[in-house]
Amino acid sequence: MKLNAEILNEQNRRFIKTHEPEYHFLADKLEKRGVDIKQIIEKVQELQVAIPSWALGAGGTRFGRFSYQGEPASLEDKISDVGLIHALTNTAGAISLHIPWDVPGDVKAIKELAASLGIEFDAVNSNTFQDQPNMKKSYRFGSLCNTDSAVRELAIQHNLEVIDIGKKLGSKSLTVWLADGSNFPGQHNFQEALQNTQDSLQHIYKSMPDDWKLFVEYKPYEPNFYSTVIQDWGTSLMLAEACGDRAYTLIDLGHHLPNTNIEQIVATLMMKGKLGGFHFNDSKYGDDDLTVGSVKPYSLFLIWNELVYGMENNSNNPIPAWMIDASHNIKDPLEDLLQSLEAIQIAYVQALLVDQNGLREAQRQQDVTLSQEILQDAFRTDVRPLIREARLLSNAALEPLLTYRALNLRGQLIKERGSYTVASGL
Amino acid sequence: MKLNAEILNEQNRRFIKTHEPEYHFLADKLEKRGVDIKQIIEKVQELQVAIPSWALGAGGTRFGRFSYQGEPASLEDKISDVGLIHALTNTAGAISLHIPWDVPGDVKAIKELAASLGIEFDAVNSNTFQDQPNMKKSYRFGSLCNTDSAVRELAIQHNLEVIDIGKKLGSKSLTVWLADGSNFPGQHNFQEALQNTQDSLQHIYKSMPDDWKLFVEYKPYEPNFYSTVIQDWGTSLMLAEACGDRAYTLIDLGHHLPNTNIEQIVATLMMKGKLGGFHFNDSKYGDDDLTVGSVKPYSLFLIWNELVYGMENNSNNPIPAWMIDASHNIKDPLEDLLQSLEAIQIAYVQALLVDQNGLREAQRQQDVTLSQEILQDAFRTDVRPLIREARLLSNAALEPLLTYRALNLRGQLIKERGSYTVASGL
Amino acid sequence: MKLNAEILNEQNRRFIKTHEPEYHFLADKLEKRGVDIKQIIEKVQELQVAIPSWALGAGGTRFGRFSYQGEPASLEDKISDVGLIHALTNTAGAISLHIPWDVPGDVKAIKELAASLGIEFDAVNSNTFQDQPNMKKSYRFGSLCNTDSAVRELAIQHNLEVIDIGKKLGSKSLTVWLADGSNFPGQHNFQEALQNTQDSLQHIYKSMPDDWKLFVEYKPYEPNFYSTVIQDWGTSLMLAEACGDRAYTLIDLGHHLPNTNIEQIVATLMMKGKLGGFHFNDSKYGDDDLTVGSVKPYSLFLIWNELVYGMENNSNNPIPAWMIDASHNIKDPLEDLLQSLEAIQIAYVQALLVDQNGLREAQRQQDVTLSQEILQDAFRTDVRPLIREARLLSNAALEPLLTYRALNLRGQLIKERGSYTVASGL
Amino acid sequence: MKLNAEILNEQNRRFIKTHEPEYHFLADKLEKRGVDIKQIIEKVQELQVAIPSWALGAGGTRFGRFSYQGEPASLEDKISDVGLIHALTNTAGAISLHIPWDVPGDVKAIKELAASLGIEFDAVNSNTFQDQPNMKKSYRFGSLCNTDSAVRELAIQHNLEVIDIGKKLGSKSLTVWLADGSNFPGQHNFQEALQNTQDSLQHIYKSMPDDWKLFVEYKPYEPNFYSTVIQDWGTSLMLAEACGDRAYTLIDLGHHLPNTNIEQIVATLMMKGKLGGFHFNDSKYGDDDLTVGSVKPYSLFLIWNELVYGMENNSNNPIPAWMIDASHNIKDPLEDLLQSLEAIQIAYVQALLVDQNGLREAQRQQDVTLSQEILQDAFRTDVRPLIREARLLSNAALEPLLTYRALNLRGQLIKERGSYTVASGL
Repeated sequence: MKLNAEILNEQNRRFIKTHEPEYHFLADKLEKRGVDIKQIIEKVQELQVAIPSWALGAGGTRFGRFSYQGEPASLEDKISDVGLIHALTNTAGAISLHIPWDVPGDVKAIKELAASLGIEFDAVNSNTFQDQPNMKKSYRFGSLCNTDSAVRELAIQHNLEVIDIGKKLGSKSLTVWLADGSNFPGQHNFQEALQNTQDSLQHIYKSMPDDWKLFVEYKPYEPNFYSTVIQDWGTSLMLAEACGDRAYTLIDLGHHLPNTNIEQIVATLMMKGKLGGFHFNDSKYGDDDLTVGSVKPYSLFLIWNELVYGMENNSNNPIPAWMIDASHNIKDPLEDLLQSLEAIQIAYVQALLVDQNGLREAQRQQDVTLSQEILQDAFRTDVRPLIREARLLSNAALEPLLTYRALNLRGQLIKERGSYTVASGL
Repeated sequence: MKLNAEILNEQNRRFIKTHEPEYHFLADKLEKRGVDIKQIIEKVQELQVAIPSWALGAGGTRFGRFSYQGEPASLEDKISDVGLIHALTNTAGAISLHIPWDVPGDVKAIKELAASLGIEFDAVNSNTFQDQPNMKKSYRFGSLCNTDSAVRELAIQHNLEVIDIGKKLGSKSLTVWLADGSNFPGQHNFQEALQNTQDSLQHIYKSMPDDWKLFVEYKPYEPNFYSTVIQDWGTSLMLAEACGDRAYTLIDLGHHLPNTNIEQIVATLMMKGKLGGFHFNDSKYGDDDLTVGSVKPYSLFLIWNELVYGMENNSNNPIPAWMIDASHNIKDPLEDLLQSLEAIQIAYVQALLVDQNGLREAQRQQDVTLSQEILQDAFRTDVRPLIREARLLSNAALEPLLTYRALNLRGQLIKERGSYTVASGL
Repeated sequence: MKLNAEILNEQNRRFIKTHEPEYHFLADKLEKRGVDIKQIIEKVQELQVAIPSWALGAGGTRFGRFSYQGEPASLEDKISDVGLIHALTNTAGAISLHIPWDVPGDVKAIKELAASLGIEFDAVNSNTFQDQPNMKKSYRFGSLCNTDSAVRELAIQHNLEVIDIGKKLGSKSLTVWLADGSNFPGQHNFQEALQNTQDSLQHIYKSMPDDWKLFVEYKPYEPNFYSTVIQDWGTSLMLAEACGDRAYTLIDLGHHLPNTNIEQIVATLMMKGKLGGFHFNDSKYGDDDLTVGSVKPYSLFLIWNELVYGMENNSNNPIPAWMIDASHNIKDPLEDLLQSLEAIQIAYVQALLVDQNGLREAQRQQDVTLSQEILQDAFRTDVRPLIREARLLSNAALEPLLTYRALNLRGQLIKERGSYTVASGL
Repeated sequence: MKLNAEILNEQNRRFIKTHEPEYHFLADKLEKRGVDIKQIIEKVQELQVAIPSWALGAGGTRFGRFSYQGEPASLEDKISDVGLIHALTNTAGAISLHIPWDVPGDVKAIKELAASLGIEFDAVNSNTFQDQPNMKKSYRFGSLCNTDSAVRELAIQHNLEVIDIGKKLGSKSLTVWLADGSNFPGQHNFQEALQNTQDSLQHIYKSMPDDWKLFVEYKPYEPNFYSTVIQDWGTSLMLAEACGDRAYTLIDLGHHLPNTNIEQIVATLMMKGKLGGFHFNDSKYGDDDLTVGSVKPYSLFLIWNELVYGMENNSNNPIPAWMIDASHNIKDPLEDLLQSLEAIQIAYVQALLVDQNGLREAQRQQDVTLSQEILQDAFRTDVRPLIREARLLSNAALEPLLTYRALNLRGQLIKERGSYTVASGL
C-alpha cells in the first residue's frame, strides 16, 4: 500500500482553513522577536528519524504479548510500513534493520522498494542476546564478554555478517547493544568481562569499512539484573575510545538509572565529540519503551536543547543518528510511531526557539530566574502550527494521525495481510 | 511597601497591545471547540494558593545557606511580602504560618494588616522537628511517636498552642508534618511508634474546634534516613481514619519515592473523600523543594487533571487547601514564588481544557492513542493568554515577574530592611 | 524420581563429622546466653515454604529465554520436582498452582502423588494477564478493572474456576495478582478502574468457601508501565477491607519502588491483622525475581525480624502463607530453589536469635547504638549449623545443594524427561 | 584524655575467656580449608582508615541539628578523639582535615600530638561550598566552575592554601569535593561549567608537590538539585585524566543514584589504575551518611571483594586512601565511628576469605550457582573472632564499644569539655 500526494492533499483540505491563520499568527509573533521562521521550518523538514524494523509489530513483556492485526510479516512489509509513516510525516526517511530478523532476500528489490518510498538504510543492529536455531554455542552467559572464546568468536562473526548485509544495503554504521551482564554477585569477573568486551569490539571495529561508524550502546540493567558489562556512558565512552575515532557512544533515553540527568550526559559527550547515536522513547520506571514524549515531555525538550546546542557549537561531533526505539504493546504500532515523531518534532522546534544569546547572557549574569524563564518560554509555546506548515510544504499530511485514521490504513493493511500475522522479531 | 492599582495599570499598559490579540485569538479558537472561556477565567480568578511564611526567605541545605538581601525579619514583613505577590498575581490570597517561627505579637494589628492586603490565614503548621531554646525535653528521638510519654505530651501541647494561635487569626485547619522516624534499623519499634503517633494525633484531633480540619502529611525519608513513621499515603490515610471525619491526608509533591505515580494517589484519595491538603513544589531527586513546574511540568498537569476531575466528581471530598512548599536557595524568594504561581495556574488551566467527555468516551472505547492525544492536546496549548486575561480582570499584573523587576521591588525591600536581615525560620 | 532416607543418610555421612562439632560449639555458645536452641530448631522444622509451579522451569525476559534441560512438562513432573526439594530440605512441603497452566487431569492421582511426597496444596493463583487460546474477549486492556463488563465477567468466572480447582485439591486460599494497569497517561480513568476492581474482587470474595482466604497482591509497575490499579499496599489494604475479614494483603518483595522500607510495611500490616501472604525473592532494580537473599540479605533479615515480631505479638494476624516467587533464567531451577530456601532459613533463624527483650529495653532507653548492635549481632552470627541440625533431625540433607549435585539429580531428570522439554507456564 | 595499654588490658581480661575458644575454633576450621589466618590477621592490623575531623561532632540536616555533649571544640580535641578511637581499635591511625574548619595554629605542637597518638595526616579537604566571613566573592553560584573568573580564582587559591597546610602537616594528597552544580534547568551551560572546572583543576594539579595525589570526588546531586558538574565516575575520570597521572577518582559510597552497581565501578576504575580515594558510609535513600554497614552490609562486602581483587591484581592502581565519611545525627559520634570501623573490618575479612581460585574456576565454568555459593559462604562466616584477635595482638580493645562504655569515656569528655561545646564544621 502506498500513499500518493493526491490522497494527502485531499485530506489536508479538511484542515487547511484552521491551519493557516494559526500558522500566520504564530509566525508573525515569533518573527517580531527576531526568530527566523523559514530556517526553523527547513530544519524540521531536514530532520529524519530512523524507524527500527521491530517497532512495526506489537512488542510484549515477559508476561505475554497481545498481537496486533495486519502486522508486517516480511522485510518488504516493514519497509512499506515505514513508507506510509514517511509519506504522512516526511520525518521517517530511514529504516534501521535488525539481523537476523531482517536478512534481506533479494537485495536489489529491497533497495528499489526503499528508494521508491524515500527510505534510506540507517545503522544496522546485531543481535547476540537471543540464541538462534541450530547455534553451536549459546549466548546464555554473554556474547562479546563471554569467558568462552568460542562464544566470543561466534558473536564477533555475527557482527561481521551484519556489517556485510549493511554494506549491501547502503548502511554506514553498526549499532552494538549488548545484553551481556550477570544476574548474581559472583557470576562475573567484572574486569575480565570488560576486557573481553573491549577486545571483541576492537576486532569488530577493525573489520568495519573505513567510512563506517560504530555505535556502542549502554544500559544499566535488563535482561540481566545484577550487572551489565556496559552499564553507563562512562563505560561506553571508555570502550569507544579504545576502539578509535569512528567509534561513538549511543544514548538510548530509557537506559538510565532513576533520576539520571540525561541532558548533561548529552552535553558532555558532544563536547568530547563522541555522541554518535540517539534512540528516542519514554519511560516512567526503567526501559519502558513508551511512546516518545508521553511521560516526560519537558525532559525531552531539555535533551533537545543540549542536542541543538551541541550541533551548533561542537563541530567535532557528527550529527547523531536518530532512531525511535519504542515498543508498542497496546497501541497500533503505526499510530504510536506517528505520536512519537510528533513529540520529537515538537521538542526539537521548542529547542530551536530557545533564545540562545539571551540564555548565555542570563547564565553569565547568574540570573537563575531569567534563565529558567527563557527555557520555559520556548517550551510553553505551542509550536504545532510550525510543524504542520513544514509538513504541508513537504507534501505530507497536516494531521498525520487523523489522516491515518480517516484513510483507514490499518483496515487496508489487515485486508492485505490478514488479522493474525506476527511481525518477525521480539 | 504596598502596590496599588495605578502602579500596576501603568505597568500593564506596556503589555496590553501584545496581550489583547493573543488572548482573542486563543479565546476564539477554544470557543469554537465549545470551551467556556468565561468560566475558565473565573476559576483562575478564584484559585488562591497559600504562601507559607518560611518561603519568603532564602532556604538552605545542610551544607550551608546563602542568604538573600531584604529578607523579611518579622511576621509583619512576611505578610507584607505575600501582599506584594498577591497584588501582582491575585493568586496568593493566603498565608500559612509556622509556629514557633511566626507567633504573632499584636494579633489585632496582624489581622488588620492581612485584611488590608486581601490575605487570609490558611492552615497553621506545628514544628516538632527542632528543639526550641529552654525546652525541657528534646525531639531528638521523635515527638508524637516518642517512647517517652513526657516528650509526646510536650509535642501534643505544642500542637494545641498552635491551634490556639490559629483560632485567634481565623485559621480553620492544622497541618501536622512529622519528622519522626529513625536513622538505623533497630532504633524504632515500628508498631509502637505508629501506635504512639495515632494516640497523639487522636488527642490533638479531639482538641480541635468543631469546624477545623486536621491534615496529616506523609514523607518517606528526611530528616530521618532509615524510616519515617508516616512514610506514605497509606499510613497517613490509616491515621486520618483513626482520628475522624475531619482528618485528611495531605499530599506534598516532593514526599515520594522515585517514580511514584502521584496522580493516581490523588485520584484514590479524592474518591475516598480524604484529600485535604496539597503542597506544591518540584523535584528531580527527592524533597528538593524546587520551583513548581521547573522540572516536571507534565507531571504537574497530570496531577491537576486528577484534581480537576475530583473537584467535579467527588463531592464527598473538600476543596483541598493549596499551598506552595518550596525553598529558595539561590533565587530571589519572591521571584521564585511568582514563577511557582504561574506554573500552578498554567497546569490548572491546561487541566480545565481537557475534553472530559471525549476522554471518557475514548477510555471506554479503549482507544489508548486518542486518550493520550486528548491529554496532550490540552497540555500543548499555550494557555498563558488566558491567565493574563484573568489577572487583568482582577486588576493584577499582566506580567508579574517583569513588573516586579521593572518596579525594582527587591531594591525597595533592601532599602527598607537592609541587606543582611535573615528571615526567621529554617 | 524419588529420594529415600537411605540415600540421604549416605550422603549425610560425608558431612556429619564437620557438622557435629560446629553445631555443638554454636549451640553451647548460644545456650549460655539463654537461647532456647531446641525451640529454634523446632521452628525451623515447622517452617514450610510453598514452591510455585512456574518456578520449576526456566523463566525468561522479554528479550528471550534460555531453556533448561530436564524441565517438568506436566503437573505430575512439577509435584515430583517439589518432592525432591522437600526431601532434601524438609522446607518445601507445599506447592502453589497456577491456573490455567496447572489444571489437574486426574485429581485423585495428583493428590495421592503429592501426599506421598509430603506436599500440600497452598494458595491457588489465577491468571488474567495473558489471553488463552479461543478466548472470546481479551485481557489486553485489563481484567477485573476493564471498562467492558463482559471482560470483567470473564475474569471473575476464571477466578471462580480456580477456586473450584483449589477446592478439589485441598487449597484454602486464592491469590489474585493483577497485571491491570495502563501504559499511558489518559488511558485509564483511575477512579473507575479502582471501583471496577473492587466490585470484581468483592464478587470473587463472596464466592469463596467460608474457610478460604483471599490474598490481594500489589505491584507498582510491570507489565504496565504508567500505572497499576493496585499499585501499593495502601490500595491493596483498602480493597481487602472492602472485601471482608478473610481478605488480606499479600507482599511480594520485588513489588516495590526503589528504596521502599518494606519491613515497616510488614509491621504495619501485621499490626492491622492484614498480612496474609508473603512472596520471597530478591532484586536490585525492580521485580527482578532473583534468588532469595542473593542481593540484599540484610534487608531479608530485617523483614524476618518484623515477621517474627508480628507472629509473636499480633495474634489477630494469621501466619502468612509463605511462597518463593523467583524466576530462574540462567541457573538450574532446582538449585536456585535450594539456595532460596537456605537463605530464607538463615534469615529466619537470625531473626529468632534477636534478643527481643534487650532490644525493647534499648529502644525505650533510646540507645540507638545498642539497638543496632543487637540486630547486627544476630545477623552476624553464622547460623548454618542450626539449620543443618534441623534438617538432620528431619531426615533431610545436611547439605542439600551438594547432595543434589553428588546424586546428579539433574542428570537423572534429563534422562527421564529429555533435554528439550519446556515447562508449561511463562 | 589518653588510653594506655594497661587500662585496655584490664578491660580485655573480661572478654578473653570467651574470645580464645571462639578464635581457635574458627581458625582451625579455616586453616583446614587452606586459609592463611596469620596473613589475614596481619592485613587487618595494617588496614588504617582515616577519620575526617567533621565526623567527631554531631552532624545535622537542613531541618536542624541536635548537638552532642562533650564535642571537640578545637583541632587538638579532634586529634585526641581520633587517638581514643585508634587506641581502642588500632584501625584509625589517620585524620583527614577540612580547611578552613581545621586550620592548625601551632603546627609543631599539632604534629607532636598526632605522632604521640599514632595518628598520621591523610588527605586534606578543601571547602568551596560555604562562604566564609569577609569573603569578597560568593560561592553561591559555584566555585571552580563559576562563570565569573574571579570566583574561580578565589576557589583555586583556597585549594592552594589547603595544599600548603597539608604540606606542613605531612599530608600527601588533596581531596576536592565540589558542590558546584545547578538547581534549575537553564541555570548552567553544562559545557562551559565542565570546561571551567577542568581548567581550574588542572591549575590546582600543577600546583601540587610532585609526590602528591589529587582525588576528584563525584556526586549526582545535593546540595544542588538539578545538576552537579561532576555528576558521576565517568566525569570524574575524564577530569582526572585531563589533569595527569597523579589525579584519581574518589568514590564516596553515598554518592550514587538509586540501584547503582558500585562494585562494578570499583572494578573498572582499579583496572584503569584510577581509583585513588574511598569514602565509607551507608545509606538507604541518597547521601544519608549513615554508619558504615548499618543498612547494606552485603553491598559493602561485594565492594570489598572488588577492592581486595584489585589490590591483588591491579598493580597499576595505588592502594586507595580510606576514609569514613559519615555524619552522626543521633548517636555519640565516637560510638558511631567504632561501629563503622567494625563493619569495615568485617567486610574486609570476609572479602579476604573469598576462595579466589575457586571463584575464578566457577566463573570460567559458568557455574552461576557455585559462584554465588562461594561469595555467600565467605559473607556468612562470622569473622568477628579474627578481628578481635588482630586487635588483641595490637594491644587494642577486644571489644571497643563495650570498653568505651565501660570506661565511661564520653562522661570523661563531657567533664573535660563541658556539655555544650559545638564542634567546628558543619
